[in-house]
Amino acid sequence: MKIGMIGLGTVGTGVAEWLIKKAHPSLCLKRIADIDIERERQFMPEKSLLTTDAHKVLDDLEIDTVVELIGGIEPAKSYIMKAFEQKKDVVTANKALLSSHWVELMESAKRHNRKIRFEAAVCGGIPLLASITSGLIANRISALYGIINGTTNYILTKMEEGIEFSDALSDAQKRGYAEADPTLDIEGVDTAHKLSILSALCFGRWCKPDSIYIEGISQITAADIQYAKELGYSIKLLGIAKGNVLKVHPTLLPKTHPLSSVSGVYNGVYIEGDLTGPILFTGKGAGMRPTASAVISDLLALARNEEFVLLKTEEAEPIPISETTSRYYVRFQAEDKPGVLAAISGILAEHKISIASCIQKERGDVVPIIMVTHDAKEADFVSALRKIEQSPKIKEALMIRMEE
Amino acid sequence: MKIGMIGLGTVGTGVAEWLIKKAHPSLCLKRIADIDIERERQFMPEKSLLTTDAHKVLDDLEIDTVVELIGGIEPAKSYIMKAFEQKKDVVTANKALLSSHWVELMESAKRHNRKIRFEAAVCGGIPLLASITSGLIANRISALYGIINGTTNYILTKMEEGIEFSDALSDAQKRGYAEADPTLDIEGVDTAHKLSILSALCFGRWCKPDSIYIEGISQITAADIQYAKELGYSIKLLGIAKGNVLKVHPTLLPKTHPLSSVSGVYNGVYIEGDLTGPILFTGKGAGMRPTASAVISDLLALARNEEFVLLKTEEAEPIPISETTSRYYVRFQAEDKPGVLAAISGILAEHKISIASCIQKERGDVVPIIMVTHDAKEADFVSALRKIEQSPKIKEALMIRMEE
Repeated sequence: MKIGMIGLGTVGTGVAEWLIKKAHPSLCLKRIADIDIERERQFMPEKSLLTTDAHKVLDDLEIDTVVELIGGIEPAKSYIMKAFEQKKDVVTANKALLSSHWVELMESAKRHNRKIRFEAAVCGGIPLLASITSGLIANRISALYGIINGTTNYILTKMEEGIEFSDALSDAQKRGYAEADPTLDIEGVDTAHKLSILSALCFGRWCKPDSIYIEGISQITAADIQYAKELGYSIKLLGIAKGNVLKVHPTLLPKTHPLSSVSGVYNGVYIEGDLTGPILFTGKGAGMRPTASAVISDLLALARNEEFVLLKTEEAEPIPISETTSRYYVRFQAEDKPGVLAAISGILAEHKISIASCIQKERGDVVPIIMVTHDAKEADFVSALRKIEQSPKIKEALMIRMEE
Repeated sequence: MKIGMIGLGTVGTGVAEWLIKKAHPSLCLKRIADIDIERERQFMPEKSLLTTDAHKVLDDLEIDTVVELIGGIEPAKSYIMKAFEQKKDVVTANKALLSSHWVELMESAKRHNRKIRFEAAVCGGIPLLASITSGLIANRISALYGIINGTTNYILTKMEEGIEFSDALSDAQKRGYAEADPTLDIEGVDTAHKLSILSALCFGRWCKPDSIYIEGISQITAADIQYAKELGYSIKLLGIAKGNVLKVHPTLLPKTHPLSSVSGVYNGVYIEGDLTGPILFTGKGAGMRPTASAVISDLLALARNEEFVLLKTEEAEPIPISETTSRYYVRFQAEDKPGVLAAISGILAEHKISIASCIQKERGDVVPIIMVTHDAKEADFVSALRKIEQSPKIKEALMIRMEE
């Protein structure tokens, strides 16, 4: 197999190092394109392999497999389409592209009778996608819950020590776990990209990322994490896919749930198959070497001419978040005056929302009141919340959804 | 693909039900052999499919794939060898056979240019073997720790509630988690079978089960589990493979170790890859439907003509347990008299074994003294233990190895 790589960033460098140092008999790295071939890297391939022109890879008739590692929509998409036209198979880690153009990419691959593999696009260090499409192939999957963004999981884990979000984010940035502009991670967009791919693989339902309800973690305070802990829960940013529900939001998970103990930069994906029952995969989701591991496993699967089995997949719309049902954790910051609790619980009752537990213990001008509800429809809960917030005695209301 | 099945037990019934009800276009179940075709089963295939003669499967030239689900060494081994000779591929769940005749089976398959797959032999509900051989193929695996027997994990989990071993075993038997004769499970033999297979796949080192050091869980008391908990550990029956160490024994694992939270009948396998870092797979290891899921994924992989990639594998001997190094938990039952602790710690010091922590709090005629050591060579520790046991003041000494 003659391989051309486009993108010599962190992951590309890891892949190139493995291919060159291990010199696997089936895999020959013929050319690497990157816009910057001068920059010092942790591993430097021979100058003769490098080019600044991606078309030197795409137009090379000897190259039969293109590894696309530049990320983003364009020019990555054009490169991949061109690769198919040129009768080349593709390995990519590009979750933004896959999630936003799934059907187009898969159809183009099929039309040109080419293969596309992307194990590295979701949870690089975990052999997850092949496990879903091949290992669990006999199953009907009913639900998937994933901690699929290491940056946010690291931040939430740090916050369990009592550190506030902004400090935990700085810490993650210092360690290289979060980017200078961390928006895509902390606002849940990266999780939605991966969830879109997982939904296509598990259910044959592809939902564009911008159709997925997304809520990030920047509103969560260290206090919320402590209250959740007192109630027996941890807070995780989850991607959730079940039936026609597809959503990304911080979630209170019981401490006894297997995903609760997935901490730090680790990813964890919990899948319910009708035959297997629940399965949990845990490992590193990102980083040079875990992601390179996934890219190379894809290359070797292509070298063995393995098929990547996809369900018949159609574009779908998740149901609106307002129509979903959940239990809710809510923290009100309320004036410490008589009648506040009665007012809140009265409005909840009006909306037929029943309270499972309540914590109010501090004293001061403004005190936190924590409530946990039983199952309620989101539209009802939100309208109750809007009404409660109109009270001048309520300074703030933060809601976090729950899962069992 | 025309499939012949030998063995219509629990798993066979699950596989037959799926094949017949789902009617997958690639998979046609042509014949099922079992010594008893009259017994009522949860799902009854048409009588016309059934035969009591396995050779009606093996000699049928239309059948190209044999599913062996009778277990045990003979006649399973002869059937599989015959299947290869008759140009049939094989899917098996037979861990006893694979672990004891690995090289012979693999060589016979190769000689006849046939395939053998056995995802169901280890952790049925977890797509583990394909993940190791394909997903982690770029990695050098340095260690594997597995909770790979659900029966013992259920018993140990029950014992965390303060129930003694024999009651927990009865409970497991009542629920169908343990067999009437539970020896193979509780004495660690089943774990050794699976560990032997995992070692061949991860390291290319095949060790016969009888060369593997095996210690079961029947010596563990509910009190040990409580003491371990106080020290911050859980007790799990682990199969451990790292370097030339291959062993099965109850193990104190820190509560923070990901395997510590794998409870009940669940299996968990923790693998360290040089690229991926640590990965944990958790799911059901046994049962009709999880195991059927694995068998069917193998059948579909054969239908796609996928290769099951094996490392070049040689027979190897694990190093003797006496040459291994570990930390140790030890519980002495000692007379509550002056000088006992001094005597014990003196003998340990003579053998250069240093004590990390010690618990002695109850009072009575005979009291438990719990010690945790730093790293020590097993031979040294055992000879210290033998010497301590000679003291008339020591009534019992139970040692459990530890991992970090």
